[in-house]
Amino acid sequence: MSRFEGRTGPIRLGMVGGGQGAMIGSVHRVAARLDGHFQLVAGALSSTPEKAEASAREVGLPEDRTYTDFTEMAKREARLKDGIEAVSIVTPNHMHLPVAREFLKRGIHVICDKPLAGTLADAKKLAKAAEASDALFVLTHNYTGYPMVREARARVAAGELGAIRLVQVEYPQDWLGDVPAPDNKQADWRTDPARSGAGGATGDIGTHAYNLARFVTGLQLEALAADLQSFVPGRRLDDNAHVMLRFEGGARGMLWCSQVASGTENALRLRVFGDKAGIEWRHDEPERLRVTPMGGPVSIVTRGSAATGPDAGRVTRIPAGHPEGFFEAFANIYAEAAAAISAARTGAPVPAGVTFPTIADGVEGVAFVDACVRSSKRNAGWVTL
Amino acid sequence: MSRFEGRTGPIRLGMVGGGQGAMIGSVHRVAARLDGHFQLVAGALSSTPEKAEASAREVGLPEDRTYTDFTEMAKREARLKDGIEAVSIVTPNHMHLPVAREFLKRGIHVICDKPLAGTLADAKKLAKAAEASDALFVLTHNYTGYPMVREARARVAAGELGAIRLVQVEYPQDWLGDVPAPDNKQADWRTDPARSGAGGATGDIGTHAYNLARFVTGLQLEALAADLQSFVPGRRLDDNAHVMLRFEGGARGMLWCSQVASGTENALRLRVFGDKAGIEWRHDEPERLRVTPMGGPVSIVTRGSAATGPDAGRVTRIPAGHPEGFFEAFANIYAEAAAAISAARTGAPVPAGVTFPTIADGVEGVAFVDACVRSSKRNAGWVTL
Amino acid sequence: MSRFEGRTGPIRLGMVGGGQGAMIGSVHRVAARLDGHFQLVAGALSSTPEKAEASAREVGLPEDRTYTDFTEMAKREARLKDGIEAVSIVTPNHMHLPVAREFLKRGIHVICDKPLAGTLADAKKLAKAAEASDALFVLTHNYTGYPMVREARARVAAGELGAIRLVQVEYPQDWLGDVPAPDNKQADWRTDPARSGAGGATGDIGTHAYNLARFVTGLQLEALAADLQSFVPGRRLDDNAHVMLRFEGGARGMLWCSQVASGTENALRLRVFGDKAGIEWRHDEPERLRVTPMGGPVSIVTRGSAATGPDAGRVTRIPAGHPEGFFEAFANIYAEAAAAISAARTGAPVPAGVTFPTIADGVEGVAFVDACVRSSKRNAGWVTL
Amino acid sequence: MSRFEGRTGPIRLGMVGGGQGAMIGSVHRVAARLDGHFQLVAGALSSTPEKAEASAREVGLPEDRTYTDFTEMAKREARLKDGIEAVSIVTPNHMHLPVAREFLKRGIHVICDKPLAGTLADAKKLAKAAEASDALFVLTHNYTGYPMVREARARVAAGELGAIRLVQVEYPQDWLGDVPAPDNKQADWRTDPARSGAGGATGDIGTHAYNLARFVTGLQLEALAADLQSFVPGRRLDDNAHVMLRFEGGARGMLWCSQVASGTENALRLRVFGDKAGIEWRHDEPERLRVTPMGGPVSIVTRGSAATGPDAGRVTRIPAGHPEGFFEAFANIYAEAAAAISAARTGAPVPAGVTFPTIADGVEGVAFVDACVRSSKRNAGWVTL
Repeated sequence: MSRFEGRTGPIRLGMVGGGQGAMIGSVHRVAARLDGHFQLVAGALSSTPEKAEASAREVGLPEDRTYTDFTEMAKREARLKDGIEAVSIVTPNHMHLPVAREFLKRGIHVICDKPLAGTLADAKKLAKAAEASDALFVLTHNYTGYPMVREARARVAAGELGAIRLVQVEYPQDWLGDVPAPDNKQADWRTDPARSGAGGATGDIGTHAYNLARFVTGLQLEALAADLQSFVPGRRLDDNAHVMLRFEGGARGMLWCSQVASGTENALRLRVFGDKAGIEWRHDEPERLRVTPMGGPVSIVTRGSAATGPDAGRVTRIPAGHPEGFFEAFANIYAEAAAAISAARTGAPVPAGVTFPTIADGVEGVAFVDACVRSSKRNAGWVTL
Repeated sequence: MSRFEGRTGPIRLGMVGGGQGAMIGSVHRVAARLDGHFQLVAGALSSTPEKAEASAREVGLPEDRTYTDFTEMAKREARLKDGIEAVSIVTPNHMHLPVAREFLKRGIHVICDKPLAGTLADAKKLAKAAEASDALFVLTHNYTGYPMVREARARVAAGELGAIRLVQVEYPQDWLGDVPAPDNKQADWRTDPARSGAGGATGDIGTHAYNLARFVTGLQLEALAADLQSFVPGRRLDDNAHVMLRFEGGARGMLWCSQVASGTENALRLRVFGDKAGIEWRHDEPERLRVTPMGGPVSIVTRGSAATGPDAGRVTRIPAGHPEGFFEAFANIYAEAAAAISAARTGAPVPAGVTFPTIADGVEGVAFVDACVRSSKRNAGWVTL
Repeated sequence: MSRFEGRTGPIRLGMVGGGQGAMIGSVHRVAARLDGHFQLVAGALSSTPEKAEASAREVGLPEDRTYTDFTEMAKREARLKDGIEAVSIVTPNHMHLPVAREFLKRGIHVICDKPLAGTLADAKKLAKAAEASDALFVLTHNYTGYPMVREARARVAAGELGAIRLVQVEYPQDWLGDVPAPDNKQADWRTDPARSGAGGATGDIGTHAYNLARFVTGLQLEALAADLQSFVPGRRLDDNAHVMLRFEGGARGMLWCSQVASGTENALRLRVFGDKAGIEWRHDEPERLRVTPMGGPVSIVTRGSAATGPDAGRVTRIPAGHPEGFFEAFANIYAEAAAAISAARTGAPVPAGVTFPTIADGVEGVAFVDACVRSSKRNAGWVTL
Repeated sequence: MSRFEGRTGPIRLGMVGGGQGAMIGSVHRVAARLDGHFQLVAGALSSTPEKAEASAREVGLPEDRTYTDFTEMAKREARLKDGIEAVSIVTPNHMHLPVAREFLKRGIHVICDKPLAGTLADAKKLAKAAEASDALFVLTHNYTGYPMVREARARVAAGELGAIRLVQVEYPQDWLGDVPAPDNKQADWRTDPARSGAGGATGDIGTHAYNLARFVTGLQLEALAADLQSFVPGRRLDDNAHVMLRFEGGARGMLWCSQVASGTENALRLRVFGDKAGIEWRHDEPERLRVTPMGGPVSIVTRGSAATGPDAGRVTRIPAGHPEGFFEAFANIYAEAAAAISAARTGAPVPAGVTFPTIADGVEGVAFVDACVRSSKRNAGWVTL
């Protein structure tokens, strides 16, 4: 029986983290708002009182739902009649476990940014907490929300590519190519092992690349060999990683993630090749899926067009040719979460087609980082997750 | 003195049109919601009672703010203490005038879809109504909301292109390339002179192309020569137009809009060439602006990057490489409207930098359509607007 | 009975024009040499003796086949037992007629650069001379030599596009965007009415664009309306042209050519749209043909791949993915000419599939320029060719 | 003192291999012919007499210079007064050593296709033979002939990229994605260890990718870790390889080559990232070099434009915007060879700027293949070349 049986309408949402100067917090707020499924009503946006209050005012939270302590927030909201039904956790990685635990144990659904945790140990603890809770756990591997990524996955699943042989995935950026400015908050925690965890580039974007490959292909990884680097002087975490991949069933692949690849901007790109055909999806042209049959010709399938199937269709808002982008893809994760949360109100099963990354994906992502670090320490020897 | 002096927080918004099966209504709702500046509280989404009610329920409107008659809505909302401060008009073109007039005369701000009206006579009447009102009038020529369109405009204004010589603009689509299915509501009214007005492709997308060229270059059009066609059997309005343009100061150009260009999807594209450099912006790659100096090399300036200036920056939500798209650009028009409406509460001037298409742009757009039709009837002779 | 009956092996070739500092002459030489069908053995590369000799030495011509006077060359070569069988004419436009006439009347085949002549009167005289001669006349509208242009034409001819509605063709450059340096020989004659003829951009590149549209679609032009400009101060010929096109059968189009479009480089591009599908070919991606069916998806057909047909195949030298380019396309015209010249040795018909631009295409091209100039003088009124 | 002192004019060239049905032989012939530096006068195009004769006739060789035995050809041509000055070797890999040895020991210059040999032992023997000879040895790593590859190299050498951190290079194809047809000669020998050597994809295209990375960056490889696969059933050589690279000075990289990547066509692509900027060159857009500074904006430098430097300029034939391609790049290697061979006639030094791949590059390429195979056998452990 759900704590929230009987509730209707927009889902009351809280947020932990995401105060002034944060980036991903505002993304979550837009994503939650875009389709009207959620209403942000409470938040511990910062642990610093003045900043928490200023941030809350900025996003329009009432004073009595503004917190500085996430535990207090969890306790009080759980008691309120109109308390939050879900919480978005947008803190640095090391806080995901302690924050999520407080809400999960009170039956409040959790929507958590990735990676799941800074360490594999934390990730496993969080998985246990999620398992013990009735609440849902949604991980915002947002790239799985792009319609043409869904289309790619559907085509792989339908056998259009034949047996998969190759997976080439990369996620280059350049924003950490130099020593960051001291006031760059985003850079600050992401390059700090205490807050980011064991992985630098591997944790922040390698997990996205890995998750995307897994999501589209459905293949299990058997082993990886990783060569990690820290190019920028003084950097304590990897800022570049080269990884060779061996999947079950014989598929092989390569993964490259980098925070120092000059002139690149979140240039996530996935190519999958089977014995019949391949697909290519690029984040800088998210509305197109290239389908590459053996011998050609390449065709360019676009979101919203007749050539796209129902899996892409259900996360599509507008006809072809009007570019949807990052916020819409992110909002698709929130919309999927909303569908599952609404179903949970009555104990109904999650509606068919609803797809979102789960705690299991989160554990696997951190296991990927952990394996990369272990492999690299062993001179890029093969390790399993 | 503003009717809404003393109001704070989100702007209470009404909507006329945009019921079930409509496309642009839902775009306006997302755009209004995305940044949290507006709250949709009332609507006459359809003139058919059952449909109006069903549509209102779907978007979460309370029953007592659900109308079937826009005049009644205008009257009642104007009397309510928490009545709407602005209304979005998303009806077919021929209704823009009668609807807008009702709200304007009661001091309620109007956000109106384009083209401003189906005929130049209606457009001029609406302009008078807007002039006579204290309320603001915002026209959603949404392409002007794209950050890289703002960047293009800023570069032209700064003289980076030198004296402008050439303007090449096109807006091809293919969705009306065949006789539409009978239940295609979007196609139905857009190909009906009674509801769409004098222009088919020219009205629906030619006005966008023309507005974009005007917005970016700032040049006044002196004359045009237009060759209009109706390719699809039975079509009563133009579905393709070729237009030659003569701007003040000697710049020349071409405009092409089409609803029958097979394999194209809202492929709006603007190229401007000056005696020093040029720029190119394409709707299918909205995050990039190509800058093309005489002799090269071409550079690709991206939204959110260091090379973009403050005009693009103020309508940017997220760092480079996370694609923003159609909804964000549309929401930028709403955000600009919100800034102006908020200023109007106290009579403060519109904040610096706030830019949105106005009633004057709307009249000019309909005059463009009118000129195209007149020219085409005179065998593509030159006419002035 | 052919003058050259009994000849075998490579065709002995002469050249008029193309001395030091020329551009197109060296292109013709490479094109003639590339497949081994021709052997350059004689030339009047310049009318200045020292330059003629120096140029001849540079390209390896023997002294006794080096001329300064093309009439003398024609006379002597016609008498020699191993005299030239064909001549390439690569002079400025105004010389095409006097030079070609001398060779044609002696039965020597002519391969002539475009446009056919500087004036329509000259073009017609040349057509008469060609008609009166047994010799072949080949015009190097080289873009028709690109394999994927042949593919486009084959697909149109096969009905894959359905009934053609729209033709959009453009050829922008920027190399004449400023007043050229005084020693720029290429610019010098091309901007001089006495040598270039009635058209500037229209003659030099507009003819290419027009020819390409005609070649691919096979449609006859019924009328055009042209707005010509001379943007660069002091320029005596058009350096930009906007042209609206009306083809037989109802197809409509636009043509834009420019020598002042900053940042563009021979960016010839053709789009044709029918009621079933369209095609797009771009000179900067010459190995690909985009096929754009109504409603999508777009497919990218590449030279040498299984999806390309026999018309492209016969002018293809190497498997897909090894880019062929400008010289190969130009050499294809020479190879076609060689096939026709070889057939002429015995009076055999031109082999099936051999395709090259003829004197008729040349007259039509100059008529296009003439029509553009006439229309522009009449304020862009419609004129026929 | 050169064997060929006193010779002038075109270089008399012989060819071994390249008979009917061969692909690369005809490429060499076009490349040799394109600039007029060489004249093909002798050949042992096949070891089968009828085929040798038919092939020779097809390419216009005189009967008395048509051979079936390359040793006899070497002996006789060395004695002829007008004997060949250079020979092109275009046989399968295993024949490079025996053929080249015969010509080298008679002082005849060798232009040899890549890879240098099928095995590292053979490669070393050939290096000794070359060292012992006065003749030149030129290896046709033809991608180094592309002007924009030269431009990339010049920019790296000039320090524009700063210290190099990353090298990402790939060469995917799909032509061996299935079991080839029995009559596919190209596939037949390339998948046969006896003729191709130790490497399949690594030998045929991996060597190109590796050579390109080395040529542009100038970096020495310290170690590699390679995971090789044979995806197609029955294949005896690798048809796909994933390689991690460690260069001197700390740069790291990845190399991928594949003959089974569906929908790709010789899609060689190199990206190099330094601490200031990066570059990207792609074989399917060979006329452009993307320069990617840290933080952007990306600029697109084109062949023949003002932004390109002298190294690209000296291997450029035609102004910007007229696409040069594969044959021209290949011909550039031949032109460089011609410059060196001409210098050798008098013992003059090779002219400044002349650059071509040498026997040392060839040995290194085979060592790369050898290292890939060794590493893969050791489960992708690190090995040195």
